[in-house]
Amino acid sequence: MSQRNFSYHAQINRNERPLQEIMFEHKDKTSISSLGEFKLIDHLTKPFTITKNETILGIGDDAAIIESKGKHQVISTDMLIENIHFDIMYSPLVHIGYKAISSNISDICAMNAKPNQILVSIALSSKYTLQAVEELYVGMRAACEKYDVQLIGGDTSSSVTGLAISVTAIGYANKKAIVKRSGAKEGDLICVSGDLGGAYMGLQILEREKQVYLESKEMQPDLEGKDYIVGRQLRPEARKDIVDLLEKLNVIPNSMIDISDGLSSELFHLCKQSKIGVKIYEDKIPIDQLTYDTALEFNLSPTTCAMNGGEDYELLFTIPQSDYDKIKNSMDVTIIGYCTAPHEGKELITKSGNVVPLEAQGWENFKEDNP
Amino acid sequence: MSQRNFSYHAQINRNERPLQEIMFEHKDKTSISSLGEFKLIDHLTKPFTITKNETILGIGDDAAIIESKGKHQVISTDMLIENIHFDIMYSPLVHIGYKAISSNISDICAMNAKPNQILVSIALSSKYTLQAVEELYVGMRAACEKYDVQLIGGDTSSSVTGLAISVTAIGYANKKAIVKRSGAKEGDLICVSGDLGGAYMGLQILEREKQVYLESKEMQPDLEGKDYIVGRQLRPEARKDIVDLLEKLNVIPNSMIDISDGLSSELFHLCKQSKIGVKIYEDKIPIDQLTYDTALEFNLSPTTCAMNGGEDYELLFTIPQSDYDKIKNSMDVTIIGYCTAPHEGKELITKSGNVVPLEAQGWENFKEDNP
Repeated sequence: MSQRNFSYHAQINRNERPLQEIMFEHKDKTSISSLGEFKLIDHLTKPFTITKNETILGIGDDAAIIESKGKHQVISTDMLIENIHFDIMYSPLVHIGYKAISSNISDICAMNAKPNQILVSIALSSKYTLQAVEELYVGMRAACEKYDVQLIGGDTSSSVTGLAISVTAIGYANKKAIVKRSGAKEGDLICVSGDLGGAYMGLQILEREKQVYLESKEMQPDLEGKDYIVGRQLRPEARKDIVDLLEKLNVIPNSMIDISDGLSSELFHLCKQSKIGVKIYEDKIPIDQLTYDTALEFNLSPTTCAMNGGEDYELLFTIPQSDYDKIKNSMDVTIIGYCTAPHEGKELITKSGNVVPLEAQGWENFKEDNP
Repeated sequence: MSQRNFSYHAQINRNERPLQEIMFEHKDKTSISSLGEFKLIDHLTKPFTITKNETILGIGDDAAIIESKGKHQVISTDMLIENIHFDIMYSPLVHIGYKAISSNISDICAMNAKPNQILVSIALSSKYTLQAVEELYVGMRAACEKYDVQLIGGDTSSSVTGLAISVTAIGYANKKAIVKRSGAKEGDLICVSGDLGGAYMGLQILEREKQVYLESKEMQPDLEGKDYIVGRQLRPEARKDIVDLLEKLNVIPNSMIDISDGLSSELFHLCKQSKIGVKIYEDKIPIDQLTYDTALEFNLSPTTCAMNGGEDYELLFTIPQSDYDKIKNSMDVTIIGYCTAPHEGKELITKSGNVVPLEAQGWENFKEDNP
């Protein structure tokens, strides 16, 4: 349905090889301990060159210094943990680095703000070589360049097991442009950017190929034709372009949130914080053909994957009906329903016209039965 | 030498029991998975009540919103990892929470700025019960109250092993008051707050008692008379009071850094970034009597412990000689030497009058031979 707007391994100069070649590769090179913490930070952060007017002082002191220029600042933080948020068996580190940044930038975009600066802390176990960490930072740098943000601070330390990445993202917006989760109004049109469920189906493919590989190490992973959804999982983009588009169209949504845990879960957040109900039309939910076909291949309902699969990092927002004409020709925005009174509940109108209650089945990592 | 200005377990209402009772305690109560991520965040962050004029929106949206009020903002981030930065066998979670905040506030103080807001992300493995995480947040709240900072955002997720805490701290200062590492001048007096080496000796005591306990589980840890240094390790304070004192005395240091990795390592940072040399007098280095006696008990040189033991979170700063009269009567600030030309190197004048080169032996976690 929507345009495929990136190929997951086409945009990073230093990592042009197809995923098949690198996903199960193990390297054993320079140990981190040969550098020590301070030299490691210097080494990793030197290639980051974007500068911002607002940044008075970046990396290298006890704290960074930011000059405020009359705008409101938005700030968000997130942590990615190995074997919870990513599996290095099939996630190239360059993509993990990219995703760590883009998923945080997504939170800034979800406030209708422009990202500007980031701080990154990493903790590494001794299995990570210097080259591995460099790959991670190549991905981070690519994301910083893509979204035009400056790395201004951070910290590296060791960990006993695995890799942990914490990112704090900072953005700015005019006071009147900032959009919260709590502003949706009865009658608002509910819009989503891009298409949904792809990241989830990409994960299913990667998990399947991992199992094949674990059973027979001679098998190479078969990702033929699945580039788009595998890329949605491994190297998602933040929809900064939608924030730019809204500005250009002179549309300020009444409410907005990014879809990290799944459409259904995010709708629950909007309903709770805006005190509204929602009606969503199944036939309006944007699903890419490859996502659709792959869901059927796995005997899954494409709609369920789109409603409950997380990590698409698309934007979900509501606009007054009076803004319909401004947005109706935007190819990459789909109107999927509208806001109702809170007592009307949260409903999905199926393709066959049945009305079923929405269920919130986000990626609640703490549920023990989750992967 | 300096006054002991806190007792490590006296300041947190919900945890008044002596460390001996709680250090090896294991609890098994409510599992985190029974709540899910969003309810956990709500539950943990509800008791945080401090509000700030600058905070337009705190926890509960994609990002927090801060209004800038003409001051410069300083921002710093840090990650604490279980079994690297703390050992839950002897560190009560309430203190780990406190230290996670105070050690980050220390970075803000080291810029001569006033801390204002923090964001906290945690990742937890399933061994942590809800009650355990609550303890952690009781400590964080105590630190937020002590330093008058507001928790404005964060994230919780699960981890495969252990606990990871990432804190981003934000502070403000007038443009002219901000102090960097790079401003020290030849002839500047070198000052430190408080006393040094205590946190390191506290760690030695805790490690010794852990070994005793591991050899015989019936032995209770013997921390008799070691409260001060054990507290320095488990529940360090940020020297916000020194930032207030400097303001009151109308002194703006030329350079400043906090002592997290050890005096020697921090002096190396100042020398490198300010392009100076230093002369430090061994007999001026402030060492508490208990630190001194405990070092001898462990057959360690008290000076080496003070120079290279980390985690004291005292402030190291340099002032022009013309400010000597303003600071000379401050009980909790010691002048330990002065800045020289860069070619004069980094020297320690021993008690016997010998001149030895300083060595940088910070807590470089990546060195494999470190604990």
